[in-house]
Amino acid sequence: MSNQEEGSTITGIPYFAALSWSIYHLKIALLTSSSSSAMAKSQALQSNLDVDYVISYRFAKTDKAKAVAKFEELCEALANVGLQTEVRNGDSHSVLLFVRVASVEHLFGEVYRSRVRDWVHGVRTAAPSKVTRESLEAEPLYEAERLRIIYQLITNPASEGGAGITPKEGEWENVESVFALHDHAYNKDWIQKWTSSYFLKTEDLDDIRNRLGEKIAFYFAFTQSYFSFLIFPAGFGFFSWLFLGSFSPIYGLASAMWCTVFTEYWKQQEIDLAVRWGVKGVSNIDVRKREFEPEKTITDPITGEQVGFFPASKRFQRQLLQIPFALAAATSLGAVIATCFGIEVFISEVYNGPLKSVLVFIPTGILTTVNPILNTILTQLATRLTQFENYETSGAYQKALTQKIFVMNFIMSYLGIFLTAFVYVPFGKVIVPYLDVFNVAVRPFAEDEKQLHLHTSSSWSINPDRLRKQVIYFTVTAQLVNLGMELVVPYLKRRGFAWFKQMQSDRAVKNGGASPSNAANDPPEDAAFLERVRKEAELDVYDVTTDLREMVIQFGYLSLFSVVWPLTAVSFLINDWVELRADAMKICVEMQRPTPWRADTIGPWLDSLSFLTWLGSLTTSALVYMFWNDHTGPSGNPSSIQLWALLLTVFFSEHLFILFRFGVRTVISKLDSPGLQKERRERFLVRKQYFEENLSQLNNMPTLSEKGGEITRKSLEEDARQGSLRDSTPELRFWGRQRGWRESAAVAKSLIERAQNETISERKKEL
Amino acid sequence: MSNQEEGSTITGIPYFAALSWSIYHLKIALLTSSSSSAMAKSQALQSNLDVDYVISYRFAKTDKAKAVAKFEELCEALANVGLQTEVRNGDSHSVLLFVRVASVEHLFGEVYRSRVRDWVHGVRTAAPSKVTRESLEAEPLYEAERLRIIYQLITNPASEGGAGITPKEGEWENVESVFALHDHAYNKDWIQKWTSSYFLKTEDLDDIRNRLGEKIAFYFAFTQSYFSFLIFPAGFGFFSWLFLGSFSPIYGLASAMWCTVFTEYWKQQEIDLAVRWGVKGVSNIDVRKREFEPEKTITDPITGEQVGFFPASKRFQRQLLQIPFALAAATSLGAVIATCFGIEVFISEVYNGPLKSVLVFIPTGILTTVNPILNTILTQLATRLTQFENYETSGAYQKALTQKIFVMNFIMSYLGIFLTAFVYVPFGKVIVPYLDVFNVAVRPFAEDEKQLHLHTSSSWSINPDRLRKQVIYFTVTAQLVNLGMELVVPYLKRRGFAWFKQMQSDRAVKNGGASPSNAANDPPEDAAFLERVRKEAELDVYDVTTDLREMVIQFGYLSLFSVVWPLTAVSFLINDWVELRADAMKICVEMQRPTPWRADTIGPWLDSLSFLTWLGSLTTSALVYMFWNDHTGPSGNPSSIQLWALLLTVFFSEHLFILFRFGVRTVISKLDSPGLQKERRERFLVRKQYFEENLSQLNNMPTLSEKGGEITRKSLEEDARQGSLRDSTPELRFWGRQRGWRESAAVAKSLIERAQNETISERKKEL
Repeated sequence: MSNQEEGSTITGIPYFAALSWSIYHLKIALLTSSSSSAMAKSQALQSNLDVDYVISYRFAKTDKAKAVAKFEELCEALANVGLQTEVRNGDSHSVLLFVRVASVEHLFGEVYRSRVRDWVHGVRTAAPSKVTRESLEAEPLYEAERLRIIYQLITNPASEGGAGITPKEGEWENVESVFALHDHAYNKDWIQKWTSSYFLKTEDLDDIRNRLGEKIAFYFAFTQSYFSFLIFPAGFGFFSWLFLGSFSPIYGLASAMWCTVFTEYWKQQEIDLAVRWGVKGVSNIDVRKREFEPEKTITDPITGEQVGFFPASKRFQRQLLQIPFALAAATSLGAVIATCFGIEVFISEVYNGPLKSVLVFIPTGILTTVNPILNTILTQLATRLTQFENYETSGAYQKALTQKIFVMNFIMSYLGIFLTAFVYVPFGKVIVPYLDVFNVAVRPFAEDEKQLHLHTSSSWSINPDRLRKQVIYFTVTAQLVNLGMELVVPYLKRRGFAWFKQMQSDRAVKNGGASPSNAANDPPEDAAFLERVRKEAELDVYDVTTDLREMVIQFGYLSLFSVVWPLTAVSFLINDWVELRADAMKICVEMQRPTPWRADTIGPWLDSLSFLTWLGSLTTSALVYMFWNDHTGPSGNPSSIQLWALLLTVFFSEHLFILFRFGVRTVISKLDSPGLQKERRERFLVRKQYFEENLSQLNNMPTLSEKGGEITRKSLEEDARQGSLRDSTPELRFWGRQRGWRESAAVAKSLIERAQNETISERKKEL
Repeated sequence: MSNQEEGSTITGIPYFAALSWSIYHLKIALLTSSSSSAMAKSQALQSNLDVDYVISYRFAKTDKAKAVAKFEELCEALANVGLQTEVRNGDSHSVLLFVRVASVEHLFGEVYRSRVRDWVHGVRTAAPSKVTRESLEAEPLYEAERLRIIYQLITNPASEGGAGITPKEGEWENVESVFALHDHAYNKDWIQKWTSSYFLKTEDLDDIRNRLGEKIAFYFAFTQSYFSFLIFPAGFGFFSWLFLGSFSPIYGLASAMWCTVFTEYWKQQEIDLAVRWGVKGVSNIDVRKREFEPEKTITDPITGEQVGFFPASKRFQRQLLQIPFALAAATSLGAVIATCFGIEVFISEVYNGPLKSVLVFIPTGILTTVNPILNTILTQLATRLTQFENYETSGAYQKALTQKIFVMNFIMSYLGIFLTAFVYVPFGKVIVPYLDVFNVAVRPFAEDEKQLHLHTSSSWSINPDRLRKQVIYFTVTAQLVNLGMELVVPYLKRRGFAWFKQMQSDRAVKNGGASPSNAANDPPEDAAFLERVRKEAELDVYDVTTDLREMVIQFGYLSLFSVVWPLTAVSFLINDWVELRADAMKICVEMQRPTPWRADTIGPWLDSLSFLTWLGSLTTSALVYMFWNDHTGPSGNPSSIQLWALLLTVFFSEHLFILFRFGVRTVISKLDSPGLQKERRERFLVRKQYFEENLSQLNNMPTLSEKGGEITRKSLEEDARQGSLRDSTPELRFWGRQRGWRESAAVAKSLIERAQNETISERKKEL
């Protein structure tokens, strides 16, 4: 515990540390069965018994014979790639197959294969030394790499030297999941360390990278540098909240610039980290998608092999479906949001009958029920569509899917505020009267008609506070709720699931079923361990992209609307500090240990960032122009806005932004970073070595200086003879005149002297 | 001549062919002295007598002893790098030193060094085979490469295995120039072929690349694809000139899209050609600038060597000087142009006294005299400034200089039209009255005051035709003049120079000087050849960037203003067809044979292209909005323009442009090109080879399937013993239970069966 105390003393935030600390313990306790003895439990938590991967094999739906046969195949396939296997009982209708590396040759083979691939794709500068062992001693595997390699060994097709086990796919649908076991000792330290320090150092990120792989490390790296960048806008935001108020152009400018700097900085930072972690360029290594359905097979012009081919033109046709999809998403989501918006405005600002205070929550109710459903439907639709687009590489697939999902999230997250800012406020007076249509929603509660209608259009005026309230809701309340959900929901889910299973087995016992529990026939000494493994087998699989999306969307609020409420960044700063720790805990406790994948970027989200930054330069300037006058914005009738002035503002600010971004890019590109230095050094060493190997013999080359002999009678005669030769070519004669540089020099001397004499004589004459 | 006839027959343009053909002969005649006999001449033209390079050594300004000593050094230095030398007399006070490769070892050494450097910088995929001769036999040198290598052999510092001769610099200021001799036989064919064919095929460009190097080849490639792209806007322009008239939004849109497509296409094409010519990435090979003045020497963090260092911050401070420079350039050039513009407007539209027709040419006179002077001054200033910015690599230097020069050219080329379109036309009525100030220019000629003043502001109205006239002037007249100048000026210059030298020597003779001519003591058989070499020594050095700039500026007119006069592209189409041939001829006849440098891009001009395309989307839309109404544009008083509408148009069109460009980029990035295929093929072959070399031993690896023995009594006892061992670790015990995959399978079988039985029994009970 000294570690923790030290942490708390140096940081002086023992509270959260202790809190999260106890939460963690609580969860671990829940994870491991409360029945088993404390000693066994801790022991079960401490050691993974050399297990590299656990394969959970579920045979509920398949008949016995088939299941057995398939399982035998499974074992053999694994054995063939040098993996040792141990079988234990899983929960009902599942078997747990423990796997560990038995033959290092196979492992080394896979390692080597992947390293050569990296080298060829330019991920590593130097070719791995040809003797596998050597190259491995030169750079030993870090844990994540080892796990990745083994995972590939299990899942890669046999043609690439793997066992070809594809969880939940095709012939291996019985294989429910292939997952590594948590390293609880490490997790404990991890949480402890993070919860007791304000900032994460690069070493902490390296640590994650070594344990969970680059892809997850990149998420944490991004969130961390976003967090530390937030400090400025938080500070400045607080300042301008005190002194400048909302919609101050100064704050708007500052925040827009900050967003630009951050985006550009991160682009650089990404490269830097990629080099630091030796993964720069891995995104260029195409991972062929298994689902890819070629139209016909052609001979690849490059490799000459027979490969599946799908014409890009046809894919493009399919991609055109994105337009109707986008429209559908926009209209459906937009309709829901706009309607709720309308109802809400109507009830809160037009309706003045009874139950108003209750009815106001109707729209929220609708939103919270309809949106998630719509969201799920659209997400499924997007996935289907992307699958239909039939991409060859999973990279392309991910990109396409992410874009669609971003569009949906964009609408769901920002449309409400857009409506308030650019429809309700400027055109309120024009539109609100038409909101009477929504009186159906409250008619039953109203005593008389007049409660349902706007008395006189003049009597009503827009509520200038609405916009601010809305922004605050999205940037504080929503964030908190979100954070809570992330931690609570999966936990409840798991408890419910456990409870359900308990029920079942109880029923089984009541019915006098054979085995009261699968744990019964465990070897006693492994009982605790197996129980823990069964628990981990039930956990969800962690998907880093959802967390990333969350961050990007949050960034969006900052870049688009923070000028409305300068404290936005402050709220985010606090939220993200917790978020970072919460995510860490989530991975440790509520998720299966993620398979460590590599990545050299946060992927398509980067484009979303740039897009939001750019859009921010438009919205911010527009908001500033419209609302700055008296912090309340236009009176509600559009006439009060000078369109040309608005356009001029936006136009100006956009180009200012583009110019500024260009500047930032040039400056950043000039800056030297450790990562880039490292890369250059490696490249230099390669070159140096190569030069030394091969150019040494070039340097000790004979110089001709000695060859050129003196002009002797003999040599002259020789020349004469040469010259007189009839059969000599003009070239021979031309080059035959002077032999060696000394002769050339001598001849030149005479020429120069004569020339000089001339000039002298000329001068003489002139005198 | 069959070649030419064939050309003319297939192309049906014998006229220009024949014309240029005779011009060519004329020039050759002028080049070679008319005195020498036809036979000798042709022979002198046909053969270069194995000469690789000619070094012209001028000693007019240095005293005899020093000159002789230095020359001796020169010869020795060359000999040391394996070059054979021959001296001949140059024109007065200069010696010609002929150089050819004598020791292939040195040449190979240099070749190899450069190829390794390429490989390390990723220019070539595969490492050159370690035995030099092999790698040379694998890919023999093409002429341009050979010449480049030899040039480097002469100029590179001794530390890099060169002779360290730096023409006109430092200790070698006597070395006037180092140039290769023209291959007249090839040149003849070249001109002949081009003048008798409409289009240049990629093979033609390959040919240039092989002879004159990639840098020049890229200029021709660019101009050629620009030329062929021009066909569309020319056609469509002609169409809209007939049917749509000027300022048609349809034409504007088409032309803007065309510019975008072309720019993006060229970016792709560049890469393609770079790969085809095996120079992709050469621009990343930093060539250290000799002029670079380090502030202090530091130990390079990468190489650990002592290197000169100049802080970027300090350079940035110096770069800030660009702002005042830009302002100075803008104001000075702007002032001149604006003034002339004012005077011109005044005289042509206000003044109505005598001599009007003559006086109108005053501004043109001023422009043509002042502008060139100003231009030279500013160019010198820009060069100074760029040198002062003290760049390490010549690449960075070139980029910085090009940017400055582009700014100047931009102002000089486009400002006039901008003034007309966006100042004169909209605000004419407001401004013109103030032009009275210019009456000083014409006062002397006026009879009475009232000729000098606008009678009534109402009486005057803007001249709607001015803009069109101006555009036509810049896109037709100016282009033709330019083309003429390019061909004529250097010719006249050379004639004048020759005449002057003739004078001198005549004078020398008159004074009874020693030698009437340097040719006197030439060996008779070389006389013709030497004369020709002396002529070539006097020629100018070809600078490709000026030609490139010309093209880019021309492109500017198209993207910015072609909507004013849709025939612009037609004029350019014709002009560029000739331009291409004229430039070829210029290189062949009026310039020294250029040293073949490598390049993988047209360099900074690419940015200029993108910039002009973007700006075009603004100007075009603005022009369309302002002038489309009645093809005459606003009446001259600004009130008639709706600012918001103008802004909306520009804003809309700009974003349309950005969106479209994004689309084009995505589409183009999807397209596969021979170049990219080639690259991928090479990379694949490297990988294939490497895998075959090293992974073969991995594939024949023992599979463990046989290891797992049957479960025998013995093995079970063994297990028991194992388990009972006190000192065994939990891991051992855990993994000891099942040996080999067969056992695992067996155990699993029993587990699965039991589980299934349970379910069955349960079902029974439930019945």
